[in-house]
Amino acid sequence: MTADPMSPQDLSCPVPVSETEQVLLGHGAGGRLSAELLDGLVLPALGTPPGVLEDAAVLPGLPELVVSTDGFVVSPLFFPGGDIGSLAVHGTVNDLAMRGAVPVALSVALVIEEGLPMNELRAVVDSLGKAAREADVPVITGDTKVVGRGAADKVFITTTGIGRRIPGLAPSAARARPGDAVLLSGPIGLHGTAVLSTREGLGFEADIASDTGPLHRLVRGLAGLGTDLHVLRDPTRGGLAASLNEIARDSAVQVEIDETTVPVPAPVASACDLLGLDPLHVANEGCLVAFVTPDAADAALDAMRGLSEGAHAVRIGEVVAGQAGRVVMRTLVGARRVVDLPVGEQLPRIC
Amino acid sequence: MTADPMSPQDLSCPVPVSETEQVLLGHGAGGRLSAELLDGLVLPALGTPPGVLEDAAVLPGLPELVVSTDGFVVSPLFFPGGDIGSLAVHGTVNDLAMRGAVPVALSVALVIEEGLPMNELRAVVDSLGKAAREADVPVITGDTKVVGRGAADKVFITTTGIGRRIPGLAPSAARARPGDAVLLSGPIGLHGTAVLSTREGLGFEADIASDTGPLHRLVRGLAGLGTDLHVLRDPTRGGLAASLNEIARDSAVQVEIDETTVPVPAPVASACDLLGLDPLHVANEGCLVAFVTPDAADAALDAMRGLSEGAHAVRIGEVVAGQAGRVVMRTLVGARRVVDLPVGEQLPRIC
Repeated sequence: MTADPMSPQDLSCPVPVSETEQVLLGHGAGGRLSAELLDGLVLPALGTPPGVLEDAAVLPGLPELVVSTDGFVVSPLFFPGGDIGSLAVHGTVNDLAMRGAVPVALSVALVIEEGLPMNELRAVVDSLGKAAREADVPVITGDTKVVGRGAADKVFITTTGIGRRIPGLAPSAARARPGDAVLLSGPIGLHGTAVLSTREGLGFEADIASDTGPLHRLVRGLAGLGTDLHVLRDPTRGGLAASLNEIARDSAVQVEIDETTVPVPAPVASACDLLGLDPLHVANEGCLVAFVTPDAADAALDAMRGLSEGAHAVRIGEVVAGQAGRVVMRTLVGARRVVDLPVGEQLPRIC
Repeated sequence: MTADPMSPQDLSCPVPVSETEQVLLGHGAGGRLSAELLDGLVLPALGTPPGVLEDAAVLPGLPELVVSTDGFVVSPLFFPGGDIGSLAVHGTVNDLAMRGAVPVALSVALVIEEGLPMNELRAVVDSLGKAAREADVPVITGDTKVVGRGAADKVFITTTGIGRRIPGLAPSAARARPGDAVLLSGPIGLHGTAVLSTREGLGFEADIASDTGPLHRLVRGLAGLGTDLHVLRDPTRGGLAASLNEIARDSAVQVEIDETTVPVPAPVASACDLLGLDPLHVANEGCLVAFVTPDAADAALDAMRGLSEGAHAVRIGEVVAGQAGRVVMRTLVGARRVVDLPVGEQLPRIC
């Protein structure tokens, strides 16, 4: 008495897909699914037109101030090179920095799982406070909520930053122009592989430490470029591939990079091989990409290399007219491949 | 071969208590345990001196702007009178309002549990967008994270608001003075009992709806009082009792209220009887207490009653010199009892 597979019900209108769908891990991964969730659900509900999404938003009526917010759910809480506390400071400070701003103040909201050992909480909050002092930004307000066992995983932290834009700088993901040099401030893949290696006990922990760190000093170092600095972006979730794709899309240009010039530390390459990951898709928390006019490229590299966080800055490619929204990599063997946005979740809870 | 119970080890310094403790639900309840967590762990780590804690902080170097952040973890997501989306807007708008500010912009950070039905997420975000439009505040930036099943409970929302202070107003929890009239903008206990009744299926849902709503128009209506408006506070977690105790402590005064004048709706009183709760400890999300000079009390009540959200504003007591930090209630039978801060958690995940 099972239903006929071609019964009339099967020919009726299906329930709209979105009403029957569930949220997937990939919706939070910074890739294509994230973009669909934002453009298809969140932004329309908030009345925000889909379009250029910057790391931080200008405050209405106060164009010198920018605001950014980020939730941190990294697992485990502690990993080589950092922890959720320092990450929550760096992530938000860096989103402000990518709009050419230095941080003025932070707010911190904690959601804590009942039963979290007090000494773990203390270590996280101590680290957060230390990172804020090192970045020279005061934590001016906060909130603490506790939920029952099993209703959260240890602790989640949301930080919001208010930053003041450095006069004369107006970087935007929509300002890349053909001819621009594409610069990278340091090696990629360290954060994501450090967290994943710790979580999964892969044994790379001794060789890899997260690059988590504040980038606003690097941006201040680039201030002399003025309007020759077109784009700044920190390649976090979705990695360098996602950042370059977003810039190519928002600026309607093609971006070309050289595989030989992209710095991937050997332990990162090994970990990625083992995990089946593309280092271009792995999250970073302490490096940035800068798009600058070709004439300003050398000065920008010099400025970055003068700071420890930019000591290994390199030029990795350039902007061409080509096809709007496309990112192409010239590979080690001389071929050319399209660098795509990661579709969904490769590395859940990486930040 | 068990150790002698009085062996020398037992006489050595014990591990400090805080190192062996765990976070309890009560640490997030807005009562005494919350205050201990803040003063003993969070604020020292962040380098913030323990002291007067306001609902929103002034932005360094920009005294006309205030910032507030709040995490929302209410369970269930939907309850009579509102849902986590509208609550996340009202809660933060109201924290700004309690500093005499109107909202300029909001940021929203979502932490979503994998598997949340897309239509529930849509309903929450739609409601959030609607509440923001009704409060006339744009959502300018946001963040979305997804964690695995069981790593969060459906969805948590952190909103951060930036507000602009209404010129001439400078309310502070530290500005209550002997002689001040204590005013309340509406009935108490609705939010907490509505949420708890829904969660526990107590059957009060038909009679009680949360009072969740924005309070900045009420504050704007009080702007004419200028410096005669000493204190504003919205009695959320910990209820009216917590707010009055914080004000009494921060202003070093005694607060006296009359039980006959405190408006407790009959269904709230019934629900509290059943649950063994004191209505003074139950969270509200759409009323405020205002401390004003005695001469300004009538004008303040008139101003509040002219708006729907303040239609039932009443005077509930006054400030006396008495004992600093004490709150006393004259009861229905003419006795006097101390109104204490709730110790820990009565109503977990109420906001």
